[in-house]
Amino acid sequence: MMKIGVDAMGGDFAPKITVLGAMAAIKKFDDIEIVLYGKEEEIKKYLTDDTRITIKNCNEVISMGEKDPVKIVRSNLDYSLVEALKDGKDLKVDAVVSSGPTQAVVAISRLIVKPMKGMRRVALGPVIPSLDGKGKFLLDAGANVELNAENIDQLAYFATVVAENALGWKNPKVGLVNIGEEPGKGRQVDKEAYELLKADKRINFFGNIEPKEMHFVDCDIFVTDGFSGNILMKSMEGTAKMMSVMLKEEIKRNTRGKIGYLFMKKNLDKFKKRFDVTEVGGAMVCGVNIPIVKAHGNSDEYAFSNAIRLARGMVKNDVIGKVKAGLGELGE
Amino acid sequence: MMKIGVDAMGGDFAPKITVLGAMAAIKKFDDIEIVLYGKEEEIKKYLTDDTRITIKNCNEVISMGEKDPVKIVRSNLDYSLVEALKDGKDLKVDAVVSSGPTQAVVAISRLIVKPMKGMRRVALGPVIPSLDGKGKFLLDAGANVELNAENIDQLAYFATVVAENALGWKNPKVGLVNIGEEPGKGRQVDKEAYELLKADKRINFFGNIEPKEMHFVDCDIFVTDGFSGNILMKSMEGTAKMMSVMLKEEIKRNTRGKIGYLFMKKNLDKFKKRFDVTEVGGAMVCGVNIPIVKAHGNSDEYAFSNAIRLARGMVKNDVIGKVKAGLGELGE
Repeated sequence: MMKIGVDAMGGDFAPKITVLGAMAAIKKFDDIEIVLYGKEEEIKKYLTDDTRITIKNCNEVISMGEKDPVKIVRSNLDYSLVEALKDGKDLKVDAVVSSGPTQAVVAISRLIVKPMKGMRRVALGPVIPSLDGKGKFLLDAGANVELNAENIDQLAYFATVVAENALGWKNPKVGLVNIGEEPGKGRQVDKEAYELLKADKRINFFGNIEPKEMHFVDCDIFVTDGFSGNILMKSMEGTAKMMSVMLKEEIKRNTRGKIGYLFMKKNLDKFKKRFDVTEVGGAMVCGVNIPIVKAHGNSDEYAFSNAIRLARGMVKNDVIGKVKAGLGELGE
Repeated sequence: MMKIGVDAMGGDFAPKITVLGAMAAIKKFDDIEIVLYGKEEEIKKYLTDDTRITIKNCNEVISMGEKDPVKIVRSNLDYSLVEALKDGKDLKVDAVVSSGPTQAVVAISRLIVKPMKGMRRVALGPVIPSLDGKGKFLLDAGANVELNAENIDQLAYFATVVAENALGWKNPKVGLVNIGEEPGKGRQVDKEAYELLKADKRINFFGNIEPKEMHFVDCDIFVTDGFSGNILMKSMEGTAKMMSVMLKEEIKRNTRGKIGYLFMKKNLDKFKKRFDVTEVGGAMVCGVNIPIVKAHGNSDEYAFSNAIRLARGMVKNDVIGKVKAGLGELGE
């Protein structure tokens, strides 16, 4: 039985969604227990079934606009995220899931749980939609504004192990996000990263990949620095949002559109689901000593339960142990 | 009567599309003449009406995979793009339009036409789709992999003049592409650019803008370095392409979808048109001494005629003269 720590107070709709998501995950997986960190009274309002769920009361909540994670950690106040991560560090829980503010989750994870020995940087790794429905693993999506070539190569290896073990992808290919396909494209860091990735026998290097092709190509993992990765991810989000609104507007514009909609409602629902990030549930905080999943701030119950599913997969397949073994750090 | 030079041999479907596009533009605008640069015999196959169109025969064509623009320029061979730009430099034509390979168009423009005095960098500036249909002006979308804060500030001013004069946007707002909205976000260059933009009285600074919001906010121009801008633009392209394919697949999946489609075909065509880049026609090569428009490589006749329209607008409104005046270089 594994234990997953859930920051019940993180996200736009906490603690309702986090509690409902936890109960949904418990129903799906009989091999997990969940510890909910947060205000006990508020949590109890929504916790209609406490099978394999316990509550650890915490009085403080990190605000979505929090800018000073170091102060949070040093405060010694009982923030729900901090307490969950402390228990993660002490191995009282096997993984942590939070919908809290991205930068705070990443920074506090690094401060409390600590990076793996041998991993220079902690990165954010979401699984983004792809045409084939399998998804693509992108990192770093925003934990570090700058990375050097060696950092990018490490992330490529980390992502390979995670993809093989937690996502079940066989011999995944790694692409370097770039402005052109040919070798020699990009900034100095991209050129250096290309050479390191090409020479790295632990990974299956695909080559440079332009974002206009990434959803279509036979390549599973995309690596870049955190600034570019964040721009890429948010540009996808923005474009998808714009197109969804445009489609809705055009359909509602006249009677023919509305009638057509009645016929193809289910088709459109399926379409929407295909590029919906909630299917994966969250981004992995990559490079720290335990599995940590950062769920979307606006996750619904389904998305949040999927974030828990992702954390469970990482624990079940001992992703962290395997990465450590690969980094030559198993005996630390 | 203004004269527009058209590289008839650039792009995936040249010279058919470029010739058809030129004839379409001539029909739309009675104040332009067009010079087609390229293989006269091939051009004549498609030129069914030579009203206000002349041909300047050129025997050489730049391949889409061309990697050495300097060699092209030094070769002294009569490449269609090179001849068009030389005539642009000598003011024999007022503007140049090409669907040739982006990097070659940008680099050869810089080599032959030369950057404006006072403009340190040449940038690529496409108008990207927005929810309100007006579009957003993005630069640099890929001419320079790196830019310093001062370069970015110059682009912001250039874009402001172009937007006011060629696009007709009143007092356009300039946003800095970034990974967060708050001041102080991003890399060192972003922090410095933020301060310069904020202090620059020639522009109307909006602040930082995340790509997930850019299609929705009341901000007209987005500036960043050419690597980030290229990633952003191509990520939009990729996401739009993926979603279009997904939508088509879901609609075709069953009879209900197909019937629904019969009802809302026109609505979906309109939807498609709203995020279609062909409406604008091309990206501006910003910072050189004449208006140069780089049309999409896969432009159709309509898109290519719109690229000519954009070039016409830049000439008609003396965009280059106004930027020069602003830079204090009118008398050069």
